[in-house]
Amino acid sequence: MTVTDLISEYRKGVFGGGKIAEAVDIYEEMLEKRCTVFLGLAGALIPSGMGKIIAELIRDNMVHVVVSTGANVTHDLIEAFGGFHLKGIQGVDSELHEKGIDRIYDAYIEDGSFVLFEENIQQILQRVDPELSVSDLMNELGRHVQSPHSFIRQAYLKNVPVFVPAFTDSILGLQTFLYSQDHPFFLDHIKDVGKIVGLVSDAAGAIFLGGGVPKNFIFQSMLMSPHTFSYALQITTDRPEYGGLSGATLEEAISWGKVSETSKLCTVYCDVTIAFPLIVAGVRNLFSRK
Amino acid sequence: MTVTDLISEYRKGVFGGGKIAEAVDIYEEMLEKRCTVFLGLAGALIPSGMGKIIAELIRDNMVHVVVSTGANVTHDLIEAFGGFHLKGIQGVDSELHEKGIDRIYDAYIEDGSFVLFEENIQQILQRVDPELSVSDLMNELGRHVQSPHSFIRQAYLKNVPVFVPAFTDSILGLQTFLYSQDHPFFLDHIKDVGKIVGLVSDAAGAIFLGGGVPKNFIFQSMLMSPHTFSYALQITTDRPEYGGLSGATLEEAISWGKVSETSKLCTVYCDVTIAFPLIVAGVRNLFSRK
Amino acid sequence: MTVTDLISEYRKGVFGGGKIAEAVDIYEEMLEKRCTVFLGLAGALIPSGMGKIIAELIRDNMVHVVVSTGANVTHDLIEAFGGFHLKGIQGVDSELHEKGIDRIYDAYIEDGSFVLFEENIQQILQRVDPELSVSDLMNELGRHVQSPHSFIRQAYLKNVPVFVPAFTDSILGLQTFLYSQDHPFFLDHIKDVGKIVGLVSDAAGAIFLGGGVPKNFIFQSMLMSPHTFSYALQITTDRPEYGGLSGATLEEAISWGKVSETSKLCTVYCDVTIAFPLIVAGVRNLFSRK
Amino acid sequence: MTVTDLISEYRKGVFGGGKIAEAVDIYEEMLEKRCTVFLGLAGALIPSGMGKIIAELIRDNMVHVVVSTGANVTHDLIEAFGGFHLKGIQGVDSELHEKGIDRIYDAYIEDGSFVLFEENIQQILQRVDPELSVSDLMNELGRHVQSPHSFIRQAYLKNVPVFVPAFTDSILGLQTFLYSQDHPFFLDHIKDVGKIVGLVSDAAGAIFLGGGVPKNFIFQSMLMSPHTFSYALQITTDRPEYGGLSGATLEEAISWGKVSETSKLCTVYCDVTIAFPLIVAGVRNLFSRK
Repeated sequence: MTVTDLISEYRKGVFGGGKIAEAVDIYEEMLEKRCTVFLGLAGALIPSGMGKIIAELIRDNMVHVVVSTGANVTHDLIEAFGGFHLKGIQGVDSELHEKGIDRIYDAYIEDGSFVLFEENIQQILQRVDPELSVSDLMNELGRHVQSPHSFIRQAYLKNVPVFVPAFTDSILGLQTFLYSQDHPFFLDHIKDVGKIVGLVSDAAGAIFLGGGVPKNFIFQSMLMSPHTFSYALQITTDRPEYGGLSGATLEEAISWGKVSETSKLCTVYCDVTIAFPLIVAGVRNLFSRK
Repeated sequence: MTVTDLISEYRKGVFGGGKIAEAVDIYEEMLEKRCTVFLGLAGALIPSGMGKIIAELIRDNMVHVVVSTGANVTHDLIEAFGGFHLKGIQGVDSELHEKGIDRIYDAYIEDGSFVLFEENIQQILQRVDPELSVSDLMNELGRHVQSPHSFIRQAYLKNVPVFVPAFTDSILGLQTFLYSQDHPFFLDHIKDVGKIVGLVSDAAGAIFLGGGVPKNFIFQSMLMSPHTFSYALQITTDRPEYGGLSGATLEEAISWGKVSETSKLCTVYCDVTIAFPLIVAGVRNLFSRK
Repeated sequence: MTVTDLISEYRKGVFGGGKIAEAVDIYEEMLEKRCTVFLGLAGALIPSGMGKIIAELIRDNMVHVVVSTGANVTHDLIEAFGGFHLKGIQGVDSELHEKGIDRIYDAYIEDGSFVLFEENIQQILQRVDPELSVSDLMNELGRHVQSPHSFIRQAYLKNVPVFVPAFTDSILGLQTFLYSQDHPFFLDHIKDVGKIVGLVSDAAGAIFLGGGVPKNFIFQSMLMSPHTFSYALQITTDRPEYGGLSGATLEEAISWGKVSETSKLCTVYCDVTIAFPLIVAGVRNLFSRK
Repeated sequence: MTVTDLISEYRKGVFGGGKIAEAVDIYEEMLEKRCTVFLGLAGALIPSGMGKIIAELIRDNMVHVVVSTGANVTHDLIEAFGGFHLKGIQGVDSELHEKGIDRIYDAYIEDGSFVLFEENIQQILQRVDPELSVSDLMNELGRHVQSPHSFIRQAYLKNVPVFVPAFTDSILGLQTFLYSQDHPFFLDHIKDVGKIVGLVSDAAGAIFLGGGVPKNFIFQSMLMSPHTFSYALQITTDRPEYGGLSGATLEEAISWGKVSETSKLCTVYCDVTIAFPLIVAGVRNLFSRK
């Protein structure tokens, strides 16, 4: 059975299954209409093993702008530097701490991978211009890593801007702070606001993996634009009733003018690590059929 | 890309995606070990379009005992009688009510399908023994319907018992009450307790689609047995911290002796309509490879 | 600070806090309008310690019809027989099993309490009419227990019917099965459908603690009535998008004619053990002020 | 009935209710032990009406360090400038958009409040040093507003640092970008990393309202410290199984060395707008009794 057959089964149904098929159709239409695709990356996507899928979407011109948490950049670079994430480790958290293993639900990473990260990132920071915007720094980092599975690398190769509004809220941010202790280093966050605002248009679609800062930063860029996103797709497990933006419906964004009544909107309430590989496989199969 | 390829990708990852692969492995092992597979059906599975998958699992000897809500039996029979569920209907609930359309989130059913149900079920009730256990009535109903897509029909054909502990909590229950108004009719619920207790053994595995009465009724059958389920797989979106059984971890069942320390347990936190078709497709592809 | 002061603070706000105040107002209005109040009891409410609140609501004429899971009846009777629930027990589930302690998230019960339950219930069953409806059996059980903290006792004293549609799905159901092995015993489930249908009217309000069978059984009673519930209040942590009735919005029930456009509806998305004591305290304080 | 009586009732129970009482005890102990209390503010807390509670906690020396989203700062200042949030507005999102009303679930704000915000913030920005760290800017803003209900004002008065790691991810960030178009303006984000790291110690406790960047930024500060938080309390509706930090258990933080085995940890799974006013009222009543 192919994923396309499976998607066809979902298409007949309702609830979450029906939404999977709808998401495939919307993402496919974004690509057919040559939209600028904005991708928001929240949650521990790289530790979960989603990095390769994201890197390949950038490589294959299926994503054109990325907004990420600092943690996803950190863990992408850790893997690019030869560090790794583990699964199947046993033991309670205090035992893990003694062993120097850090837990991210059922993903694990050894302190050694962070040491490797520190060694590499401190060297790279010495080689980059000490006055950059955050997105320019991401581009520089992409220049200095080689792994084709790194989305930071692929973004550099494809000239895809990567925005990290909460840059200091990450181990990469901590490392940059350490570097700044004995080197001049100024990271311009405000400049990136103008840069992303310059990228939005009516020919844009947004894909939100989780909510958080990436979702809001992508959406708020439309507040300074006469345009709206023509497509928006979010995969989340959060919910609207508690009032946070991460769980807000995409319809709510109509009131803010971030999307319009005629925009195509789809929310899939599902663990991103289940839904996104399925949706991407569905879109790729549809494309390969053409 | 085949579903097997996709499952292989999930197998490398963690979080929900990793659980999908684990669920495929556990269900496959249940079948290889020739376990008696108990399937719990909670939530609006038939209106969602999952009926065909469930019927085919029974047909193909992949499920051997079913515990269902009365609603899933009702909607299965509605489709077997020629009624149907709709999707894509517009309008607020008061408009739907005026049009005689009933909503189940984004599934819809016309009052006409319930009229059809009433006509058929009242006729069938006249043809069945007025003193039956609930599971015997399910078997009788399966004898009187023809659709191969009906899990009640397939259960009849394969002699798979279908238990419905909350029988009166359904439109089928309401119809039975109406019938009982002018016909002698006695439905034995207690007898089914002994019947399901007689089916459990160490060579049994449980699959719970949602929680509710089906989950508890399957699990409690082990309280009157020296055995435990060797495998348990649940797909749920509920959570443990609120204390209800639907969201309880499978590990909690170890304290009750429903499963043991050595039982293989897997919980997938996902919409059943997304996860179950994927897991079943994965199991079927693995089988077809052998 | 009084609970009334706190409710006043909630009343100014939105999201869940605002809903708490709205729930207080709706429950208060149900009582002022002398509605028949239907209470649905799903989830492990008695093990959680909510039994006293429920018993007192019945005692004080604030609840007039109860629909419960069999488990809540079982645990209510266990406490009435002198058994008890524990908190603060340490140990993993396999250790608890060895010690004969059963876990319900962070509530615990010793096997001894179930032995006590068996001894008492087997004796009581010998003293009751062997041909009863489930609700009549609940009334008989209330006659044979003494604890004022038992909702089954208070329901007996106040002639409040208690419906248990999934009676056999409980340890009480297992005990009844054991009794039926060597004693004639017939429990009429269908008769209760007519009984609850006879209780609904436009002067009725429903309060759902969790969803499950109690929610559906209360709501479906309106399908055989020209009336609708004028008030409905649900406290749940489930959500609509997965399609199950437990998480369904109360607005969806308009399409089914269970409530109407003019009914007052309120859903509080919260753990019942947090929200319900707060709401009840708020209603009682408002009443005491009059 | 006083809130203290209600908390006593919760203390006897389990599930979420028991956690409310545990949270009161832990927050009370943090204060008795003279801990530095770090408060993380995620989600639309100010639009929900929680601003006054937060401002009063700072005023009364019950919170000593704040990490907030930019949105909460923006909405706090909007109210300080005389703007306001509304509730009870009717209409679908497209109608709201035409009326110039923006929706935040069931909170609403008129475009006029944002115009007022722009006028005021642009004037204030002209009066502040054009080279500040983000937390220094928050202090400056607090100097220029007067409302005692503003947590930014109270933080200024009590010299409580307010960190906003994702500053540009907010309308305040957009306004700062606009200002920077024709005025030199440099906001140092990296400097704040050193500042918060300098504040952590073993005599510190963390309270997380929601997760997001505030939770991670508070916790990661311990990665550069030999210490751990002795207390951590989180109120969240997110869950661990999807792998994101917002839903991560506090126990997971033991593996990272952010808290230790001996730290007192409590997670309340509840809407912050329900649980936090209740917990704060409980702590205040306990204090007033001393």
